[in-house]
Amino acid sequence: MGSKSDLPVMQDAIDILVEFGIEIEVDIVSAHRTPEKLFDYGKYAHTRGIQVIIAGAGGAAHLPGMVASLSPLPIIGVPVKSSNSIDGWDSVLSILQMPGGVPVATVALNGAKNAGILAAQILGSSDADILDKIITYKAGLKAKVIDSANELKKF
Amino acid sequence: MGSKSDLPVMQDAIDILVEFGIEIEVDIVSAHRTPEKLFDYGKYAHTRGIQVIIAGAGGAAHLPGMVASLSPLPIIGVPVKSSNSIDGWDSVLSILQMPGGVPVATVALNGAKNAGILAAQILGSSDADILDKIITYKAGLKAKVIDSANELKKF
Amino acid sequence: MGSKSDLPVMQDAIDILVEFGIEIEVDIVSAHRTPEKLFDYGKYAHTRGIQVIIAGAGGAAHLPGMVASLSPLPIIGVPVKSSNSIDGWDSVLSILQMPGGVPVATVALNGAKNAGILAAQILGSSDADILDKIITYKAGLKAKVIDSANELKKF
Amino acid sequence: MGSKSDLPVMQDAIDILVEFGIEIEVDIVSAHRTPEKLFDYGKYAHTRGIQVIIAGAGGAAHLPGMVASLSPLPIIGVPVKSSNSIDGWDSVLSILQMPGGVPVATVALNGAKNAGILAAQILGSSDADILDKIITYKAGLKAKVIDSANELKKF
Amino acid sequence: MGSKSDLPVMQDAIDILVEFGIEIEVDIVSAHRTPEKLFDYGKYAHTRGIQVIIAGAGGAAHLPGMVASLSPLPIIGVPVKSSNSIDGWDSVLSILQMPGGVPVATVALNGAKNAGILAAQILGSSDADILDKIITYKAGLKAKVIDSANELKKF
Amino acid sequence: MGSKSDLPVMQDAIDILVEFGIEIEVDIVSAHRTPEKLFDYGKYAHTRGIQVIIAGAGGAAHLPGMVASLSPLPIIGVPVKSSNSIDGWDSVLSILQMPGGVPVATVALNGAKNAGILAAQILGSSDADILDKIITYKAGLKAKVIDSANELKKF
Amino acid sequence: MGSKSDLPVMQDAIDILVEFGIEIEVDIVSAHRTPEKLFDYGKYAHTRGIQVIIAGAGGAAHLPGMVASLSPLPIIGVPVKSSNSIDGWDSVLSILQMPGGVPVATVALNGAKNAGILAAQILGSSDADILDKIITYKAGLKAKVIDSANELKKF
Amino acid sequence: MGSKSDLPVMQDAIDILVEFGIEIEVDIVSAHRTPEKLFDYGKYAHTRGIQVIIAGAGGAAHLPGMVASLSPLPIIGVPVKSSNSIDGWDSVLSILQMPGGVPVATVALNGAKNAGILAAQILGSSDADILDKIITYKAGLKAKVIDSANELKKF
Repeated sequence: MGSKSDLPVMQDAIDILVEFGIEIEVDIVSAHRTPEKLFDYGKYAHTRGIQVIIAGAGGAAHLPGMVASLSPLPIIGVPVKSSNSIDGWDSVLSILQMPGGVPVATVALNGAKNAGILAAQILGSSDADILDKIITYKAGLKAKVIDSANELKKF
Repeated sequence: MGSKSDLPVMQDAIDILVEFGIEIEVDIVSAHRTPEKLFDYGKYAHTRGIQVIIAGAGGAAHLPGMVASLSPLPIIGVPVKSSNSIDGWDSVLSILQMPGGVPVATVALNGAKNAGILAAQILGSSDADILDKIITYKAGLKAKVIDSANELKKF
Repeated sequence: MGSKSDLPVMQDAIDILVEFGIEIEVDIVSAHRTPEKLFDYGKYAHTRGIQVIIAGAGGAAHLPGMVASLSPLPIIGVPVKSSNSIDGWDSVLSILQMPGGVPVATVALNGAKNAGILAAQILGSSDADILDKIITYKAGLKAKVIDSANELKKF
Repeated sequence: MGSKSDLPVMQDAIDILVEFGIEIEVDIVSAHRTPEKLFDYGKYAHTRGIQVIIAGAGGAAHLPGMVASLSPLPIIGVPVKSSNSIDGWDSVLSILQMPGGVPVATVALNGAKNAGILAAQILGSSDADILDKIITYKAGLKAKVIDSANELKKF
Repeated sequence: MGSKSDLPVMQDAIDILVEFGIEIEVDIVSAHRTPEKLFDYGKYAHTRGIQVIIAGAGGAAHLPGMVASLSPLPIIGVPVKSSNSIDGWDSVLSILQMPGGVPVATVALNGAKNAGILAAQILGSSDADILDKIITYKAGLKAKVIDSANELKKF
Repeated sequence: MGSKSDLPVMQDAIDILVEFGIEIEVDIVSAHRTPEKLFDYGKYAHTRGIQVIIAGAGGAAHLPGMVASLSPLPIIGVPVKSSNSIDGWDSVLSILQMPGGVPVATVALNGAKNAGILAAQILGSSDADILDKIITYKAGLKAKVIDSANELKKF
Repeated sequence: MGSKSDLPVMQDAIDILVEFGIEIEVDIVSAHRTPEKLFDYGKYAHTRGIQVIIAGAGGAAHLPGMVASLSPLPIIGVPVKSSNSIDGWDSVLSILQMPGGVPVATVALNGAKNAGILAAQILGSSDADILDKIITYKAGLKAKVIDSANELKKF
Repeated sequence: MGSKSDLPVMQDAIDILVEFGIEIEVDIVSAHRTPEKLFDYGKYAHTRGIQVIIAGAGGAAHLPGMVASLSPLPIIGVPVKSSNSIDGWDSVLSILQMPGGVPVATVALNGAKNAGILAAQILGSSDADILDKIITYKAGLKAKVIDSANELKKF
C-alpha cells in the first residue's frame, strides 16, 4: 500500500488471504515518497518468489501502475477513497486507465477484499487446492444469501 | 465477448495471446440475449481446463460480472465503448464496481490488448516460460520508446 | 432485491403496493451470489402468475438487467445508493444502459416508492380499479401540496 | 416526442411496436413550446383508451415527467442525445430523477427501441398474446447471437 | 418553490428581497403534483403585475422550465440540492439546459440568495432606486472583505 | 464575448435581439487578455444607459462573473463549448457557480439565443411593448410545433 | 485567498512556507467582491518584489485566473472545496482550464500544502539554498514512510 | 513527454519556449515503458542545470507525478487528451490530484502552450529579462484582442 492511512481499507485483502491460507507479505511503498523502494520492490518481486502483487493507493494513485511498469507479475490495483480524493474518481481513473502494454487488474473503489479474492483466483488458476477453496468460499456466499432470504420470509 | 460488434476491440486480446503462443477459445456469449449459454459457459469453464476468462462488453455490461458469479476462475473484464454507451462511463462502472466476494479484474476502456497481457501474466505467475515471454515483451516496449526518443533527438 | 442491505430502501416499494392493495412477493435474489436462484426466478416468474417484477440493487447492479434477460415480463429497476457505490452513478448506469432488446424500466436513485407506483400503473393500464386507485393517489399528492401552500401563506 | 428532431431516434419505438402489431398514435407535444397541448394530452390520454405513453425528449427534458404528472398511465421516458445536450447527461437526469409519487419508466439514452419493447411488455403483463410475441422476440435475439457465435467459430 | 422542503434553501431569496424592500409573493407550486396550479400560475402571473418569477426545485426539477414555457416574464431558476438529488447534478442540468426559445436564468446550486439579488437587478435595470440599492449592497460586500483582510493582518 | 472565436455561438444572441428590435452593442472583452478593458466596461456600463449585459465565454470562463462583480446590472452568462473546453463542463461550472452576492443569470451550453430572449424578457418585465413581442414570439414557437405535428400525421 | 472562509485550507500553504523560512504576505482579495483591490494587487505585485503568488478560491473560482491575467509572475491556484461547491469540480475546472496565454499552476483540490511546496520549488529553481531545503524536505517524507513500513512489520 | 504520440500537443510548449529564447531539451521518457530512464532523468535533472521540467502524458498519466517524486525541481504537468483517454478526465485527475508533499503544477487539458509560458514565468520570477519578455508577450495578447474588437465594430 502507498501509505499507512490506506491500511483500514487494505486490511480486507490481508484478512481474506489469511482466511484462504495463502502466504502474504505486507509493506508500505510510496510511489511518490519512496521511489527507490518502489523500484527495488517492483524489479525484484518476481525473483523472490512472489506470484501476485496487490497495490492500493488513493488520489493520483501511481503505485499500482508503477509496480506494473517494473514487474512482469500480475498486479492488482485497489483504488482507495482517501481523504484527498475527489469522491474516488481520481483513484479509479489513475489506476484503471493504463496504457497499452502495462495492465493493472483494477477492482472496485475500496474493493480490497475482492483484490484478495482475485489474487487467490490467480493462484487458483494453476493450483487445484486453492481453486477448491474458492469454490467453497463462493458456496458460502450463496448460503448466506439464501439464509437472509429465508429470514425475510418469516416476517 | 457479449456481441459480434465488440470484435474489433476484442481482437487486440486475441492477437497478443496468439503472439504469446497461448492457446485460446473465442466465443460470443450475451448475458442479456443468451443467458442459458452464459450459465453453462460460466459454470463449466474451469472443468474444461480453461484457466482465465476475458469478457468484454459495453453499456450496462453485465457479462464479466455474471461470468465471475458463476466461475471460480479469475475473470478479466474489458469495458467496451460501444455505440450505445455514455462515453464509456456505463461500461467501466458496470464492470468495475462488483460487490464484495465476486471480483472482476478490470482493464482500461477498450483495453483488450492489456486484457490479453494480463491473462498471460496470470498464467505466467506459475509458469516460468510465459513469465520469460512477458519479460521479453516488456523489454521490447522499452526498446521502442528508446528508439522514438533517439529519432526525436535527430531533429 | 439483491441483498438484505437493500431492504431499507426497497421497503418503500413494499409499503406503497400494500397501500394499493396489490398482492406482492418479497425475496432476496443475488445476481452475483445466487446465480442459479436468479435463473429460476427469472425464467419462471411469468408462469407463476407474476405480472411485474421490481428489482433493486447497488454498485455494479446486474440483478434488474439479468432478470430482464430471463423474463418476458416488464422489469422495474431501482438503483440503490449502497455503501460500495460511487455516489450512485454505478448503480444508475448499470441498470439504465441496457442494450437493445432487453429494457429495464429504471426509476430514480433509491426511488423504490416510485417503482411501486409504476408497478401499480402497469397493472392499472389494463385494470380500471387499480387505475382509479392511482387517480385517487395522485389527487392526494395534490391536496398535500395545496395544504402546505396554504400553511405557508398563514405566516 | 418533444420535437420533430427527435423523430430519427423515436422511429425505433414506432418500428418495434408496428412489428409487434400493437396499435399506436404518434404525435409531437412540446412541454416548453405547446404547454396547453401537453396539458390536454396528459389529462385525457387514459380516457381515450390509451394504455401506455412513450415520451422522448433531449436536454432539460421535461416532457416525460410532465406527462407523468398529468396522467395516471405508465409513462416511458426516452432520453434523447439531442444536439443541445451535454453528452446526454442532462436528458438522462431530467427524465430519471423524478420525485416520489410521479415515476417515469426511463430507458437507456436513445433507447427508443427498448421503450417500444417495454410498452409491449407492459401490455403483455395482462395480455397472453402479446406476452407470447415477446417470448418469441426474445428467442429471436438469442438465435441471432448463437448464429454470430457460430459464424465466428468458422474463422 | 416546488415543495415545502425547499423552503430552508429558498428562504435566502425571500430575505434578501425583503432587505431590498421589494414586494414579493411566496407560494408552493409543484410541477409534478399540482400541474393545474402551475398552469394557472404561469399563464397569468404577468397579468397580475408580477415582474420576475423565482422558481426553485430539486432532482428532475421541472418547475422553473415549465413556468418559463407558460409565462413571458424572466424566470430565475434555483437548483436545489434536495435529498433525492444526485449531488445536485440533476437539479442543475434539469434547470439549465432549456431548449432554444425558452430560457431560464439559472443561478448556482442552492443559490437562492443570488436569485433574489438577480431579481432585484432585473427590476433595477429600469428602476434607478433599486439600482442604487444594489450599488450600495455591493459596496457593503466589499467593505466586509476589506474588514476581514484587515483583521487577518492583525494576527 | 471573450474572444472572436465565440462569435459563431454568440451571433444567435445578436440575431434574436435585432429581431426583437432592441438596440445592442457588440464588443470583445477578454477577462484574461484585456483586464483593464473589462474593468472599464464593467464599471461604467450602467452609466452609459446599458440595461442588461450578455457575456459569453468558454473553458475557465471568467468574463461573465467578473463583469457581474463590477456592474450592478443583470448579467447573463453564456457557457461556450470552445475547443479548449472539457465537453463544456468547465464553461458551465465557471459561470454558474458564482458566490453569494454576485449572481450570473446562466443559460444552457451554447445557449446564446436564449440569452438574447432572456435579455428581452428582462427589459420586457417593465416595458409592455417588449413583453408583447415576447408573447408573440412564444405564440410563433407554438405554431411551429403544431405545424410539424400536423405534418407528421400526414404520413 | 478569496475569502476568510478559505483560511483553514490555505493555512497549510502558510505553514509550509514558514517552515522553509520563506518570507510571505497573506491577504484576502476577492475577485467578485473587491475587484479594484484584485486589480491593484495583480498589476503591482511584481513591482513590490513578490516572486510567486498563491491564490486559493472555491466554486466559480476566478481569483487565480484573474491574478494571472494581471501579473507576469507565476500564479499557483488552489481549488478550495468550499461549502457552495459541487464536490469541488467547479473549483478545479474554474482554475485549471485557463485559455492559451494565461497559465495558472493548479494543484490538487484543497492542496494548499503542495501550493506552498511548489512556490518553494519555483524559488529553488534559481536559489541553491532553497533547493537544498526541498531536497532535505523530500528526504524527510521518505524517512516517515520507511518508519511506518517498519512499524507495520513489527505487527 | 511520455510517448511520441504526445508530440503534436507538446510541440506548443517547445514553440513558445523557443519564441522566448529559453534553452530547452526535448525527450521521450515513459513512466510505464522506460521506468529506469524515468528514474535517471528525475534524479539527476537538477544536477545537470535544468531548472524546470514540463511533463505531458495521457490516460493514467503517471509521468509528471513520478518525475515530481524524484526531482526537487518545479514540475509542470500537461494532461494530454490521448486516444485512450476518457474525454481527458483520467489525464487531468492523474496529474492534478497529487498527495501532500509532491506537487505537480498542472495546466489545462492539452495546455502545452501554457506549460511553456508557465516555465518562462518560473524562470522570470528571478530573471528580470525573462520577466520583461513575459510582460511584452502579455501586451501582445491584449493588442490582438483589441484588434479583433475593432475589426468586429467595422461590421
